[in-house]
Amino acid sequence: MIAQFSIVPLGVGVSVSSYVAKVIKIVDESGLPYKLHAMGTIVEGQWDEVMGLIKKCRDALMQEVERIVIDIKIDDRKAAKGRIEAKVRSVEEKLGRPVKK
Amino acid sequence: MIAQFSIVPLGVGVSVSSYVAKVIKIVDESGLPYKLHAMGTIVEGQWDEVMGLIKKCRDALMQEVERIVIDIKIDDRKAAKGRIEAKVRSVEEKLGRPVKK
Amino acid sequence: MIAQFSIVPLGVGVSVSSYVAKVIKIVDESGLPYKLHAMGTIVEGQWDEVMGLIKKCRDALMQEVERIVIDIKIDDRKAAKGRIEAKVRSVEEKLGRPVKK
Amino acid sequence: MIAQFSIVPLGVGVSVSSYVAKVIKIVDESGLPYKLHAMGTIVEGQWDEVMGLIKKCRDALMQEVERIVIDIKIDDRKAAKGRIEAKVRSVEEKLGRPVKK
Repeated sequence: MIAQFSIVPLGVGVSVSSYVAKVIKIVDESGLPYKLHAMGTIVEGQWDEVMGLIKKCRDALMQEVERIVIDIKIDDRKAAKGRIEAKVRSVEEKLGRPVKK
Repeated sequence: MIAQFSIVPLGVGVSVSSYVAKVIKIVDESGLPYKLHAMGTIVEGQWDEVMGLIKKCRDALMQEVERIVIDIKIDDRKAAKGRIEAKVRSVEEKLGRPVKK
Repeated sequence: MIAQFSIVPLGVGVSVSSYVAKVIKIVDESGLPYKLHAMGTIVEGQWDEVMGLIKKCRDALMQEVERIVIDIKIDDRKAAKGRIEAKVRSVEEKLGRPVKK
Repeated sequence: MIAQFSIVPLGVGVSVSSYVAKVIKIVDESGLPYKLHAMGTIVEGQWDEVMGLIKKCRDALMQEVERIVIDIKIDDRKAAKGRIEAKVRSVEEKLGRPVKK
């Protein structure tokens, strides 16, 4: 499955990119395929791999802050893999030309 | 923590309430505090309890359908409990009167 | 259509219920059917009514804070009305018994 | 502000990439800065520009399908522009090295 998630800490000021950096460090070290974009991080893996990774990120942030809001969106399709790239490619094929990505 | 989640199966037609019913049956049997509303289900518990429950719902649906989209939104606040009701009550107190709920 | 939304202000501390109270006041005065729950507000109306309302809430908060994160989830189904209650009822009918709501 | 959105049509089968292609065509023709990724489309602009665009995409799909689910996530920060790229860059600066993007 692929999942997109974002973690927003509350009560730490307007800028939260240093917390996102901590999260991405953990994601990067997990070895799972991922992609960071402006609104979240996309990761691909089995349920337990992905959810275990998000829990690890949450645990790391909850050591430093009082409250976090986490958004997770999962696209789970049987027997599908390599979808971080493949889903965008499939749209481009339907459209007949490349898009901004 | 409290979490809101919804699971939408794709490729099974326009109406998905029979799938939501299967999910709610599992949630209800879990014993965790929950509340169903028109856009999802809110549940309260520890990370592993809540995520274990959502995984169980996902496993049940993936036995029947090819693809699902899951949305999860978590509000995780240290030492806070009973928040499915308390968060709404806190807004009413700030407002000084009851709201539709 | 029905829409669920939540607005989280950043940089104003851990507790945000006073801001939610401002939002709910605007929603309540709009006259649109709504329901507040622990993770957001559900409202029903035409696209322009609902989106105009959310814009009004956003404008009110952006006068006070530097940054907000808004989540909107829309369920748009042709010719369907009264769905804040009807969607839950439909699940209960499929299940054959009432749920916590 | 920047906004991420995704539109999922129900009742049209398991694969929805041809509908995403229609949406991206409309986004691309809008002239607004955008980026397609595996879980949605990010676009930057003023509230009315972005919401007008999403409405246009919704109208196009509702001519063909009976029901759609739309997710919108907005990050609205005063005086901030060029954030589709800048937010990722800011994380990389905090981290001290490039990430997968």
